[in-house]
Amino acid sequence: MVRNGGVESPSPRPRIHQTHPHDTPLFQSTVSERKLRRFNYWIFVFRLAAFVCSLSSAVFMLTTNTASSSDTPRWYDFGAFRFVVAANAIVALYSLFEMGASVWEISRGSTVFPEFTQVWFDFGHDQVFAYLLLSAGSAGTELARQLRAIATCTASNAFCIQSDVALALGFAGFLFLLISSLLSGFRVVCFIINGSRFLL
Amino acid sequence: MVRNGGVESPSPRPRIHQTHPHDTPLFQSTVSERKLRRFNYWIFVFRLAAFVCSLSSAVFMLTTNTASSSDTPRWYDFGAFRFVVAANAIVALYSLFEMGASVWEISRGSTVFPEFTQVWFDFGHDQVFAYLLLSAGSAGTELARQLRAIATCTASNAFCIQSDVALALGFAGFLFLLISSLLSGFRVVCFIINGSRFLL
Repeated sequence: MVRNGGVESPSPRPRIHQTHPHDTPLFQSTVSERKLRRFNYWIFVFRLAAFVCSLSSAVFMLTTNTASSSDTPRWYDFGAFRFVVAANAIVALYSLFEMGASVWEISRGSTVFPEFTQVWFDFGHDQVFAYLLLSAGSAGTELARQLRAIATCTASNAFCIQSDVALALGFAGFLFLLISSLLSGFRVVCFIINGSRFLL
Repeated sequence: MVRNGGVESPSPRPRIHQTHPHDTPLFQSTVSERKLRRFNYWIFVFRLAAFVCSLSSAVFMLTTNTASSSDTPRWYDFGAFRFVVAANAIVALYSLFEMGASVWEISRGSTVFPEFTQVWFDFGHDQVFAYLLLSAGSAGTELARQLRAIATCTASNAFCIQSDVALALGFAGFLFLLISSLLSGFRVVCFIINGSRFLL
């Protein structure tokens, strides 16, 4: 496997100054480079969607506490809701970092880490965090169903609705992360085949 | 992408009669074929482990009903436990089919479906069923925790212990399915690179 760490040289290269897509023929941009750029835009879009969903899921769950009466249940009383908040916060942070890495790659044409590390880092974390988020979502959903069964929700319906919204947003975040994970898996395959992240 | 469906021709080929591994030098067996065979043994082992775990998980959950007293809770009273039984039964069936496909491939040297279909079928189903099993396991675990909280378990402890065992077996099945999914993902990569399932 070729390790293309050399792409990461800190000295500025001519391509860095090329910000406008119409300048491409002047520089060493090829068809595969333009394809990679479009692919990176798509990755960025899904990362952004995952970030928005998981951040709002965590925020929704956190703000269930602002309900007026003091005897409403609170999210941190329930282990599964703590798990949901933690998982969504982790995924939001990770997506933020990956969005930064995407922007870096689109603007500078090189990856943040050496290429080998980057593609495997992305794919591995996508997989693990997708499983984490699904697990949290399932546990939270089951807890929400139980709360409904033991009539907590008739007493404080706002809490239940807000936590349902948080769970739904968490599942949406999971879907976007899943798509990102497929895309980064595709990048890993490209890397294995070509020895670089450029597309087939 | 080369589609090697031709391997599936129904007419018997000389390799089919070669059942003993020491006969290999006489026929067209190469190093990569022996590697593939060893790889298939490993896949078979993990499929078998996933099958055993998920089948025993489903059976354990189903047999919680045989408890003596009639007022013990039953697994089908709880949505999450029904989900656990269903997911584990599906995975057990799927693993059984995949074990058959593995044995077929080891003994006959060709895949059940055409090669392109087979590698993508395996990988796709592994992914989906791994997510399904994890989701069921998480929901079931949260329900088990809730049952403990509302003191169902002090009344009928055998039920709780048996469902805990079933959940643990389900998670073990998930782990084995996850490993199978990585292995079949590797097969997909090999197929994309080589145009055949033979290893790199």
